Amino acid sequence: MLKVGVMGVRGYTGEELLKILLHHPKVRVTSLQARLEKPMSLSAVLPRFSHQTDLVCADYTPEVMARGCEVVFLALPHTVSMTVASKILKKGKKVIDLSADFRLKDTALYKKYYAADHVAKGDLKEAVYGLPELYREKIKKATLIANPGCYPTGILLGAYPLLKKGWVESSFVADAKSGVTGTGRSASEAFQFAEVNENFRAYKVAEHQHVPEMEEVLENTLRKKIDVIFTPHLVPINRGILSTLYFRLTRSVSTQQVTDLYKALYQKEPFVRILADGKLPEVKHVLYTNFCDIAVKVDAVRKTVIVVTVIDNLVKGAAGQAVQNMNLMVGFGETEGLL
Amino acid sequence: MLKVGVMGVRGYTGEELLKILLHHPKVRVTSLQARLEKPMSLSAVLPRFSHQTDLVCADYTPEVMARGCEVVFLALPHTVSMTVASKILKKGKKVIDLSADFRLKDTALYKKYYAADHVAKGDLKEAVYGLPELYREKIKKATLIANPGCYPTGILLGAYPLLKKGWVESSFVADAKSGVTGTGRSASEAFQFAEVNENFRAYKVAEHQHVPEMEEVLENTLRKKIDVIFTPHLVPINRGILSTLYFRLTRSVSTQQVTDLYKALYQKEPFVRILADGKLPEVKHVLYTNFCDIAVKVDAVRKTVIVVTVIDNLVKGAAGQAVQNMNLMVGFGETEGLL
Amino acid sequence: MLKVGVMGVRGYTGEELLKILLHHPKVRVTSLQARLEKPMSLSAVLPRFSHQTDLVCADYTPEVMARGCEVVFLALPHTVSMTVASKILKKGKKVIDLSADFRLKDTALYKKYYAADHVAKGDLKEAVYGLPELYREKIKKATLIANPGCYPTGILLGAYPLLKKGWVESSFVADAKSGVTGTGRSASEAFQFAEVNENFRAYKVAEHQHVPEMEEVLENTLRKKIDVIFTPHLVPINRGILSTLYFRLTRSVSTQQVTDLYKALYQKEPFVRILADGKLPEVKHVLYTNFCDIAVKVDAVRKTVIVVTVIDNLVKGAAGQAVQNMNLMVGFGETEGLL
Amino acid sequence: MLKVGVMGVRGYTGEELLKILLHHPKVRVTSLQARLEKPMSLSAVLPRFSHQTDLVCADYTPEVMARGCEVVFLALPHTVSMTVASKILKKGKKVIDLSADFRLKDTALYKKYYAADHVAKGDLKEAVYGLPELYREKIKKATLIANPGCYPTGILLGAYPLLKKGWVESSFVADAKSGVTGTGRSASEAFQFAEVNENFRAYKVAEHQHVPEMEEVLENTLRKKIDVIFTPHLVPINRGILSTLYFRLTRSVSTQQVTDLYKALYQKEPFVRILADGKLPEVKHVLYTNFCDIAVKVDAVRKTVIVVTVIDNLVKGAAGQAVQNMNLMVGFGETEGLL
Repeated sequence: MLKVGVMGVRGYTGEELLKILLHHPKVRVTSLQARLEKPMSLSAVLPRFSHQTDLVCADYTPEVMARGCEVVFLALPHTVSMTVASKILKKGKKVIDLSADFRLKDTALYKKYYAADHVAKGDLKEAVYGLPELYREKIKKATLIANPGCYPTGILLGAYPLLKKGWVESSFVADAKSGVTGTGRSASEAFQFAEVNENFRAYKVAEHQHVPEMEEVLENTLRKKIDVIFTPHLVPINRGILSTLYFRLTRSVSTQQVTDLYKALYQKEPFVRILADGKLPEVKHVLYTNFCDIAVKVDAVRKTVIVVTVIDNLVKGAAGQAVQNMNLMVGFGETEGLL
Repeated sequence: MLKVGVMGVRGYTGEELLKILLHHPKVRVTSLQARLEKPMSLSAVLPRFSHQTDLVCADYTPEVMARGCEVVFLALPHTVSMTVASKILKKGKKVIDLSADFRLKDTALYKKYYAADHVAKGDLKEAVYGLPELYREKIKKATLIANPGCYPTGILLGAYPLLKKGWVESSFVADAKSGVTGTGRSASEAFQFAEVNENFRAYKVAEHQHVPEMEEVLENTLRKKIDVIFTPHLVPINRGILSTLYFRLTRSVSTQQVTDLYKALYQKEPFVRILADGKLPEVKHVLYTNFCDIAVKVDAVRKTVIVVTVIDNLVKGAAGQAVQNMNLMVGFGETEGLL
Repeated sequence: MLKVGVMGVRGYTGEELLKILLHHPKVRVTSLQARLEKPMSLSAVLPRFSHQTDLVCADYTPEVMARGCEVVFLALPHTVSMTVASKILKKGKKVIDLSADFRLKDTALYKKYYAADHVAKGDLKEAVYGLPELYREKIKKATLIANPGCYPTGILLGAYPLLKKGWVESSFVADAKSGVTGTGRSASEAFQFAEVNENFRAYKVAEHQHVPEMEEVLENTLRKKIDVIFTPHLVPINRGILSTLYFRLTRSVSTQQVTDLYKALYQKEPFVRILADGKLPEVKHVLYTNFCDIAVKVDAVRKTVIVVTVIDNLVKGAAGQAVQNMNLMVGFGETEGLL
Repeated sequence: MLKVGVMGVRGYTGEELLKILLHHPKVRVTSLQARLEKPMSLSAVLPRFSHQTDLVCADYTPEVMARGCEVVFLALPHTVSMTVASKILKKGKKVIDLSADFRLKDTALYKKYYAADHVAKGDLKEAVYGLPELYREKIKKATLIANPGCYPTGILLGAYPLLKKGWVESSFVADAKSGVTGTGRSASEAFQFAEVNENFRAYKVAEHQHVPEMEEVLENTLRKKIDVIFTPHLVPINRGILSTLYFRLTRSVSTQQVTDLYKALYQKEPFVRILADGKLPEVKHVLYTNFCDIAVKVDAVRKTVIVVTVIDNLVKGAAGQAVQNMNLMVGFGETEGLL
């Protein structure tokens, strides 16, 4: 049994990680960190786990976490994570970081979007972007994983085949809609129930921190300039992200041809499902799963191809993908604990 | 007091119309039609109106409606409405049709999207598209109004200034998200609570019947070819539509310049509000009102301008706009009964 | 036109009050108070009001409010309200207090449930409990109204007829379910969207502050000891309260007889609707209205009568009832501005 | 591996059963029945299962089901189930029936509440009510299980200890609130999204079919007359039931004493959790689990004890409990596949 730990278990992502890890047949959860005055049982911190485990949470240091685990998951805030990760890596243990701290190779962009200097530039060089569909082989050898952002996961999987094939222009629109757990658990007036319920809004139009993440990944992979015109929206649901992508076609292709392209590219992927025959993805079909569902539609008259993708932001968009990365890093079956 | 009637009061649009008309200071509701075996009190049909009115509903013929009213609102299904409208017009009364039957001048497009031959082509020629911000003077003289579709209302108001000014390409993306009352009240498995709640989905991608409506209006007004790349989505809320529009800039302009353009164009409009200073529209700010809120944002790096618009689909997107049209047609103050 | 002011306009209750008052045909809103660093336009504080009014909000003192208004509505927190009310009353103006500060005549109970000494005992003696269906004549002569709590409004209207008639025991169960705006707008983790959505919970079981309010009103009116066994629950909706009351019958009566009793007692009430023939109240039928809908059902086998009542907690449960009280106090028609 | 089948997989209960059975480590799902014109892949019927299984659904006869399975779960409509069950039992296979057909021993009550004659009276005599906390030993030997109704499960677990101990009167109030999946998937206007969302209502007041089920179980177990005064309500959430029970105390006891009573009685139960120290159950803590959470509170002044219980109606209230029963019947660990 692989000994693993989670830092930051009280957030939505930490809680979801724990749910998955506790059911993983080859893993033993040994250490749970949360910001607590004194150690508490996990059941007291998160009542849903009572009667299921005797685990205890405490405000452990990174060094203590490293001592008890082979792999440590960091579900910590941006800017906090990088310092913690470095300390654990120094002890020779593997780190899967669910924050944004190791996603951007360009530290100037990091500073611009996260308002902090990067203090772990050495580790940043080694970090592998944890999107298995694009970087599987690198992930297998990595010791530090930058687990992708929730929006980038669905959008990158939806955009990559067309951009790689070159049937479309390199500037595209990504209109994304996310459930509320994407924003985390801490209290704010803007996310009170009565402010979100029966409401719908866009936010951070053309200035969201996931734009440089998506552009950097696509540019590094495809070796050309890519523009992602990105607008996130808040949907009054707990979980799930649907992204609608609009590409201008540079040649004439049919819906069937584009569908075939996606099917071919993702044929062996255990967690990508390509819909056909006019079926469209729905958030409910991927809830509580690690799947990304994708459908495409060509509007021939308007020389456009529209791609719709859905994921569960807490699973494929965070905790599930982190476990998928762990499976790859330690040589488990990739779907272990995730189906 | 102007005597008015409503045909099809049981649907969401009919009910909303009635709420507005019953509070209108210059209107008396005289005749209400619904598909009923025998006449019933309005309270029995729609319990929210009990204790407020003694009105009765019955399955009146168009001729009976025409006899008792100066203006008849049709909240009837597509393809039913055109026949009914003609009969009332023949009696010399005004008609405001909330169905799609008189929105498309091109009857071939009508047949393609609504699967029926148009049987009132004479009246169709006289029909005026009831978007006051574009056609106010024509509406004042009209006897038959084609009340705009819910999606087109918000999208046309958001797209028109930029397209008219010519700062953008003539092909644009309109990604729209609508509450559920847009689909009407009749039962179907796809709209059962547990199928919509905690779900989010796109539908009719690149094939929605509002595409030809928007393109026809813009082309007739602007005298050039326009492409609307349109994807509607279903949001688990009762009311409201938010549309996010993406235009490619053909020249370099700032957010401030675009905001000024919109403010100038809509300066005297009682029901269009342009947001500035980074504020973004939210569905909740227009619920139960006849307002359309609009904000713009330029992404200079990616040569794009993003426009976000919101309306209440049952008010500015249907019943409220219908009453605004009535006010114009009979010479009342345009905002009467709507603030 | 009656000049009125509102203190505490930023809360849900203050906002609702403003919506009603701005449409009231005999009222002019002159002064709006909110906790602001410096005066701001109402539109900046509450965007839904933009384009509708030029009103300004500022952190006015009670004395300034008294100078500009004949009636001042207090939508302030408990314990703050009593001091403010006294200052306005001293200037000879009328006060309608929507907090709990003047609801309990027993100051020991006040201290127990609101954790503060009562500092306006003189005014408390003069305060009239603003439930028009029970205290209409007193309200007409009052200068200080204690506007009832949201839960008590629906429960008292549902319980009063049976208790007065004496067909039931004097101890009854009131199981109430409320939308989220009842808790106010300020941020807390427990009321974040993802904590409330897809959740349902009871709270303050057998210890809610509305218990002494209900018991005191019933005991003072009926001149006997009453026990209200009360459990409030939180429903993931914005507005509305449904209360289910369970009384043990002390004699054999039918559903019809109890319905007749309620119809007779509330026959002339403009805002109470008694449902019959097996119809049951629903929150949606009273949303955005000042109505209280009530239905009764006798379970003869189990010697119990069940009463179901619904109100909109922000209207009949707060702002609407406050305006109803104002209408009575100044001699306007009771329903003015409320239908 | 135990071979099992499910009849009626398309409903919410059937789908949930399948999710649990597919993850059960000792079970192989062999046969799935649904009302289909011709056989279809499970993925086509229920898209969430695509990429996870190659199972096929078809409209198999009971005899075909019996041939391929050791245990058959019936997620069929009431009145259909009894005929099917008999046919499978005749083939010597075990049946777990999730309909109401074998819950009531009194066939007169069955006829009254389900409007049909019971046509499998012989099997009915052998049927065991599948609430493991009350009937574990009988379940182990059963060949036909009447899986309890969703409301009865939570209410019986909450009521049993106090009634058995005799600290309360034998008539109690059960005020229950359920998510919408309790009503099944088929389309009806009353359960359309916009009719349920932002609404809350009671239904079948004092006439719900679960009343005789609860009374019969309690009376048979406790050997005395019990009155359950029951009102179900519809909550705009997908899953979960919270029930609030009100008992009149016949002696003076404290919250602590009642909590201890429950803890003692349910000490060894794997799926019942008693909350203490003022904590109250919430639907979200049991979602997607087989737990029933219970808390108690004594209102000493009003001589009442209030019990709050929550379950997930599709798990402990249906599919999870069915699998718990299967585990007992075939000698697996009781929690196998359920934690």
